[in-house]
Amino acid sequence: MSDESTVRTLGAIVFDGFELLDLYGPLEMFGCLPNEMRIETVAAAKGPVRSGPGPETVAQHSFDDHPDFDLILQPGGAGVFQALESEAHLDFLRRASSTAELTLSVCNGSALLAKAGVLDGKRATSNKIFFDHAEEQSDAVQWVPEARWVEDGNVITSSGVSAGTDMALAVIERLYGHERAEAIAIVTEYEWQQDAQKDPFHAYLNRKDLMGKVLGIPL
Amino acid sequence: MSDESTVRTLGAIVFDGFELLDLYGPLEMFGCLPNEMRIETVAAAKGPVRSGPGPETVAQHSFDDHPDFDLILQPGGAGVFQALESEAHLDFLRRASSTAELTLSVCNGSALLAKAGVLDGKRATSNKIFFDHAEEQSDAVQWVPEARWVEDGNVITSSGVSAGTDMALAVIERLYGHERAEAIAIVTEYEWQQDAQKDPFHAYLNRKDLMGKVLGIPL
Repeated sequence: MSDESTVRTLGAIVFDGFELLDLYGPLEMFGCLPNEMRIETVAAAKGPVRSGPGPETVAQHSFDDHPDFDLILQPGGAGVFQALESEAHLDFLRRASSTAELTLSVCNGSALLAKAGVLDGKRATSNKIFFDHAEEQSDAVQWVPEARWVEDGNVITSSGVSAGTDMALAVIERLYGHERAEAIAIVTEYEWQQDAQKDPFHAYLNRKDLMGKVLGIPL
Repeated sequence: MSDESTVRTLGAIVFDGFELLDLYGPLEMFGCLPNEMRIETVAAAKGPVRSGPGPETVAQHSFDDHPDFDLILQPGGAGVFQALESEAHLDFLRRASSTAELTLSVCNGSALLAKAGVLDGKRATSNKIFFDHAEEQSDAVQWVPEARWVEDGNVITSSGVSAGTDMALAVIERLYGHERAEAIAIVTEYEWQQDAQKDPFHAYLNRKDLMGKVLGIPL
């Protein structure tokens, strides 16, 4: 059990057009540690924030007014393209990551970290289909195209969407030990892929034509 | 491409204490079909609804005032124990499932379907750790303890938390074909477990002591 002084606060960033599982896969896993981790949502402004397919999540805090975060989680999504133009968003990432114990991203959330300079000199990954778009945000990053997730010091970036859930369990293992992470995977009936270097989707790097198959239209 | 007449509306039920991934794993997958499926959230009352670990989702509709739903999705979570006492919730499930093309549940969401009578005479499953609690809700259900998900006509119930994501892809396959489901799994970098009868967590049936390992306390 933990007393208040050992509780970590995780700042989960939401923004218009965020990808649902990028955010909620990791939050499912971190949410299994109610005695150790407090989850808070933060966005450009307090209030409802629309995800890509519609459902809204309430941001409890704004980029200008929020508690100290021990961890920050930057999800990706189609909305990243617009968020990259937001100086307030990039500035929040610079400030919050400079004091955070761990900075995490999922999918093309790493494009935002890269443009903010948070990944300068670091190894990092991003989602497969739009990998080149992340690369374009910074040439000061050592981009790793074949990885489920990449840890470089206190910054951890995961590959696309579902990879964030594996990364979150690896973070829980790092902070609270293997037994806790494994128990969480079991009760959530999640087949945890524990090898950061095993990337089942590497073959689809930059295959944007697959979006046409998803949408049922030629691309 | 679809015109408006072929768009399906999915009613995603939220309630106090819902489990994040129960809801958002399936919504990630259904959300990849913006031309075929519209996602709407519904709860006892419109407005913010708190999940188990805190983050709030906005309910767009109430159980009393909502559009017709082609599909309904009942997630589970610790809040199910309280929702089982809500006649408004159970009545909504009876009404909405009687006209829906498909009724879906994740985890102990099937306990609610069972108590509402929606599963009468049907085969169904639930999460592993609290399986006995689902069984207690109805003896008119043929409970299947070893399954990733169970399809019985137009009612599909999945096992715990993460199993809902596999079920959602199976539903997409049923409605829109295998190629679409597979393309969605690839772009979301999700290793789809396609066999409804393969249940990697069956060995943990009713192992409530595992909650102690999750929380780091003896149970």
